[in-house]
Amino acid sequence: MVTSAQLRAFFEPRSFALVGASDKSTFSRLLYRNLVAAGHEPSTFLVNPRSDRVHGRRTRPSCVAIGRPVDLAFVMVPATAVADAVRDAAAAGARGVAVLSSGFAETGEEGRRRQRELVLLSEELGVVLLGPNVLGFVDVAAGIPAMALAGPPGSAGNVALISQSGASCGAMKDFAALAGVGLSHVITVGNEAMVTVGHLLDHLVDDERTRAFAVFMEAIREPEVFAAAARRAAAAGKAIVVLKAGRSELAAKAATAHTGALVGDDRVVDAVLARLGVIRVDTIEDMLVTAGVAAHTGPLASPGIGVVSISGGACDLVADLAQAAGAVLPELSGATAERVAAVMPSYGHVQNPLDITGAAVIDPGIWETAVSAVGGDPDVGVVVAVNSLPWREEDRPFYGQKYVDAIGAGMAGAGVPAIYLTQVTQPMGAYTREVLDAGGVAHAVPGLRLGIDALARVAGWSRSRATAADFTPPAVPVRDVRPVPYSEADARRLLESAGIPVVPARHVHSGGEAAEAARAFGGPVAMKIVSADIAHKSDLGCVRLGVPAERAAAVYEEVMAAGRAPAAGGARLDGVLVSPMREGGLELLVGVTRDADWGLVLAVALGGVLVEVLDDVALTPLPVSPARARAMLESLRGAPLLRGVRGGSPAGVGRLAEVIAAVGTLAAELEPHLESLEINPLRVDGPRIEALDALVVWRTADGRATEGRQ
Amino acid sequence: MVTSAQLRAFFEPRSFALVGASDKSTFSRLLYRNLVAAGHEPSTFLVNPRSDRVHGRRTRPSCVAIGRPVDLAFVMVPATAVADAVRDAAAAGARGVAVLSSGFAETGEEGRRRQRELVLLSEELGVVLLGPNVLGFVDVAAGIPAMALAGPPGSAGNVALISQSGASCGAMKDFAALAGVGLSHVITVGNEAMVTVGHLLDHLVDDERTRAFAVFMEAIREPEVFAAAARRAAAAGKAIVVLKAGRSELAAKAATAHTGALVGDDRVVDAVLARLGVIRVDTIEDMLVTAGVAAHTGPLASPGIGVVSISGGACDLVADLAQAAGAVLPELSGATAERVAAVMPSYGHVQNPLDITGAAVIDPGIWETAVSAVGGDPDVGVVVAVNSLPWREEDRPFYGQKYVDAIGAGMAGAGVPAIYLTQVTQPMGAYTREVLDAGGVAHAVPGLRLGIDALARVAGWSRSRATAADFTPPAVPVRDVRPVPYSEADARRLLESAGIPVVPARHVHSGGEAAEAARAFGGPVAMKIVSADIAHKSDLGCVRLGVPAERAAAVYEEVMAAGRAPAAGGARLDGVLVSPMREGGLELLVGVTRDADWGLVLAVALGGVLVEVLDDVALTPLPVSPARARAMLESLRGAPLLRGVRGGSPAGVGRLAEVIAAVGTLAAELEPHLESLEINPLRVDGPRIEALDALVVWRTADGRATEGRQ
Repeated sequence: MVTSAQLRAFFEPRSFALVGASDKSTFSRLLYRNLVAAGHEPSTFLVNPRSDRVHGRRTRPSCVAIGRPVDLAFVMVPATAVADAVRDAAAAGARGVAVLSSGFAETGEEGRRRQRELVLLSEELGVVLLGPNVLGFVDVAAGIPAMALAGPPGSAGNVALISQSGASCGAMKDFAALAGVGLSHVITVGNEAMVTVGHLLDHLVDDERTRAFAVFMEAIREPEVFAAAARRAAAAGKAIVVLKAGRSELAAKAATAHTGALVGDDRVVDAVLARLGVIRVDTIEDMLVTAGVAAHTGPLASPGIGVVSISGGACDLVADLAQAAGAVLPELSGATAERVAAVMPSYGHVQNPLDITGAAVIDPGIWETAVSAVGGDPDVGVVVAVNSLPWREEDRPFYGQKYVDAIGAGMAGAGVPAIYLTQVTQPMGAYTREVLDAGGVAHAVPGLRLGIDALARVAGWSRSRATAADFTPPAVPVRDVRPVPYSEADARRLLESAGIPVVPARHVHSGGEAAEAARAFGGPVAMKIVSADIAHKSDLGCVRLGVPAERAAAVYEEVMAAGRAPAAGGARLDGVLVSPMREGGLELLVGVTRDADWGLVLAVALGGVLVEVLDDVALTPLPVSPARARAMLESLRGAPLLRGVRGGSPAGVGRLAEVIAAVGTLAAELEPHLESLEINPLRVDGPRIEALDALVVWRTADGRATEGRQ
Repeated sequence: MVTSAQLRAFFEPRSFALVGASDKSTFSRLLYRNLVAAGHEPSTFLVNPRSDRVHGRRTRPSCVAIGRPVDLAFVMVPATAVADAVRDAAAAGARGVAVLSSGFAETGEEGRRRQRELVLLSEELGVVLLGPNVLGFVDVAAGIPAMALAGPPGSAGNVALISQSGASCGAMKDFAALAGVGLSHVITVGNEAMVTVGHLLDHLVDDERTRAFAVFMEAIREPEVFAAAARRAAAAGKAIVVLKAGRSELAAKAATAHTGALVGDDRVVDAVLARLGVIRVDTIEDMLVTAGVAAHTGPLASPGIGVVSISGGACDLVADLAQAAGAVLPELSGATAERVAAVMPSYGHVQNPLDITGAAVIDPGIWETAVSAVGGDPDVGVVVAVNSLPWREEDRPFYGQKYVDAIGAGMAGAGVPAIYLTQVTQPMGAYTREVLDAGGVAHAVPGLRLGIDALARVAGWSRSRATAADFTPPAVPVRDVRPVPYSEADARRLLESAGIPVVPARHVHSGGEAAEAARAFGGPVAMKIVSADIAHKSDLGCVRLGVPAERAAAVYEEVMAAGRAPAAGGARLDGVLVSPMREGGLELLVGVTRDADWGLVLAVALGGVLVEVLDDVALTPLPVSPARARAMLESLRGAPLLRGVRGGSPAGVGRLAEVIAAVGTLAAELEPHLESLEINPLRVDGPRIEALDALVVWRTADGRATEGRQ
């Protein structure tokens, strides 16, 4: 546990102790150099009981020996000596320790034990623990470079960079500087033993200088803390952009893609992050550029991107990239088109992306009018000007300053956020910034792909961030749960009680009743034994399909005999369910399973075979509204099948969404007893929707599960 | 037409004329400045009849007036004056003209006419025409900067950059310099009126300095020339990397995805480029980096990529990116693992990607051993070292030179090509090159995504480039073709003659014969009228499915009556085909259609509905071997269905591939008369394969088509 007040104090240190300072340690050298360079020499103390002088300065044998309070201690001693160092720091008044030492949870069981003890000790001492296995942090604007990394932190800005990895943090910081993404903070979190990414997000959502987050992580610790922080960030319009490694674990699991196997899957992480309004990316470059764009634009009022360029080739590439990224390039309205046409040469085409042609080389004013007009279009939420920018000092003075000026003027009159985009990735350093500042351009992105991908993501986030509000992962694992024997008939009643339509059935207890039921249904029937004790009924011959009415009585006896056979292990039997056979229509899988971190997750997939073959599944954590269920259906690759392909009748999608939402509601109501609930298939034939088969598995006190098939 | 000898002469000019030289023209200023800076002042002449001095030098009124031969003339006069300028240049002995002027085919019908006349004139004069609408070219190593673009061309290297767009060429050149991709040539081709990309590829395949191509194009002109050049490049092991805009035209066509609509589709371009061993990319960055990698590695002996890094985070990201890109990261062999384990710390994991851990900070020798051992693994075709590199002058001297040295030593002992990869995109300028050279590292790529994507593509190309050899697009359009009336019965015989299995059928001419046929098939039958004149038989009631034997006689009369109804327009009728009904199994579409540029293209898709909904189609130009047909089947997303999902029997994939290849062979034999041939469905039920329906459309002399359904 760590409180907001504690974190505030941790990140405002006025004095520093380097515990284990040594001329041989790169960490020590870099930390000391950075602190001194930022003017913190008088308040930085070197602690080393075995060496009088380090980095040319006098050392102290301990923190306590400094003789004045120390706010933040950097601990760089061997893992086994860390606990004593923390005690000493606390005794010297430290409110925080950043443990740079490794040798904790990342090394195995012994390290995990040592880490647990370190957390307990820190809690007892009331000290905030960053790490272990960190490099520290930088508060860029406040001038606190409390980090063991070389190189400048880049210019101050509005993106907080949080990285689990210290080693990769250098590359991230470098790319931020290169891409012109200004940072408010750089924080490494290492093993996250006490302070997790979620705590930092929560802390910085209230920081005025931070308007977006770039987060590199390998696991999401303390899901509840993370989710709560994400909800606050979404509400505040501060985008969280996450680069989380681990997608390729998917490969190993691709073969077993039914809902049971989805648990713990990277796709659950995907679904949860999407639900929390968190943007997920795949590269460091995308993470930083997307956060930079989001910090500049905030949530877009409209998802449409308006693009203006002087290069037809760039327009073509933008159109291709936008389609691939799912970005919306709206058609220009009549009024916009008129404003643009008034300044365009006769051979130009007024469209979006807009190629203003070489005419703008002679008349920069075309840039101003076009950017301002496209930005003013009612469907455009952000306007982009694609043009070159200089970055090599040799290219001074920049011949194209007049175009930058015109673009800046157009952006000022656009009425929506604006981005300057170069065709290719290039450094956006001090010289480039000068050129942009002179033209009044606030934000630029290097490279078409980085820019269009970032804008597509920010536009999507602008629409979807509201969905973070209604999702809270479970606080505590459920343990004390009774086992509940569950039969088909019970599962059936459960679904019906929740308003989920189920195929008609009669529960019969004799051959005669079976024959009568089959005749009543007026055609071939499905017959299944009713038993809470038999899991795989088909395998035992306890399920029979397409039984003609005249065979029903005999089949009843055959099925019951199969249930009494030794293979069934003395299962308790409760007669047979008789249902009419269904042909044609579309089959869906609707299932709810439990993720260890994120609780109950609902899955929707089209087609029994397609779910395995095409991996065409939509997931979301509970709760699920009909609107969300509809969005899930529409996100499936196979969604056109619902609209009725080649003469098939279109599904009643509104009703279907209600049924799916009802499954989610039922599952949520069964918390904490439900392990999983799977309807497979849910048959859809035009407006007619029916669960044909369902399986419910309950949680039990000893971790085993019992199941009941409808 | 342009010959090799002409192109050789064109690209080795010793004297230059700038026709239309003017102080006001940016083109003129840049061209002149570039030529003078490269020492060509004495052999560069300025032509302008209306101004005595331009760029501070004396002008001549015409090329002829120069009084000595001119090899290459740059024409920058208005479009209407270009023809006269070309005549003058030719009269002065020019072997080539680069027309920078615009106002030709890109502006409409009048411009197209002007362009055609310009080509005829140039051919008549024996002059090579580059453009119009170009900026010229640079031969980097030979020091011929005959191009109207600012900025340095970057360092000399082995990639030839060819760009249709002049405007975007600046950005490409800049990124090549930034990414450390050395160039042999930069050539803009503009409207490609005479010299096309294909001609340049063909010319430069024989250039020793050129080992790979980066090509930006919006259309592929003269497919036959392009294809021939691509075949030569593939054979020479010189990769062509194409960035072709236009993928998003796909969007408009997505709704009508049956094979007819695939013609002219961007997917045909995709299929043709793949077949020709051409690598296609989506961004300028990918184009240049991929070409740079291919120029360095050449074809890989094995597709496996071995990765060594000091950052666990980078290893995770590499694994994710590799999976997304389809790159192969082979498991290390036992011997490799032993060599690596000998130098790794105990807590490290020996795997690929290999995290050599922080231990290598202290012992750089770990780098050398690991890179050399992983490179020596029998399944590894290229070894990658992921580590940082400096690029800011402020970072001199580079603290990590010893690691670069160790990596270079490891690469020298690897026995396979090697790439140094940084975690993020960054400039690879002179200082970076110094650091690499000092360490003996030949090639570096900036950024994980760019590097892994490039390696995945080069590995794929290394395996597939051989397929370029057997494909030649048609030389001339077919015009003089007879119309051929074609009925079901004819289509059926055609398939059978080619060894393609067809569902059994009896061609009957009376109700009695129909009833007898139905009884002989022993179950419900399908009945279709036979007529070469009726295209859409189902719509007219001329097809009936699931007819019981006892109804066959009556249905015969009903179907024939439908064929005689006014709606059938007096079609000639030839009785009815009776076939047994087929249930279950898997349905494929196998079709051959004609692309205007690339000739007959074969399409394979799974499932009648799936082809439209999931857009799951594999395409290739003819000819199609069984091996290629098999590869097409395996490339489908729905391929697992062929292996038999959930108890379905696995398809006889070997036999199926033979049948598909036979369809391709049949279509090829029907050249030039065939317009399209579509089998839909081709039913596959385990080992049993049968065409259930087929449609053949012939080409006619007047461009109309007649069709015949099986």
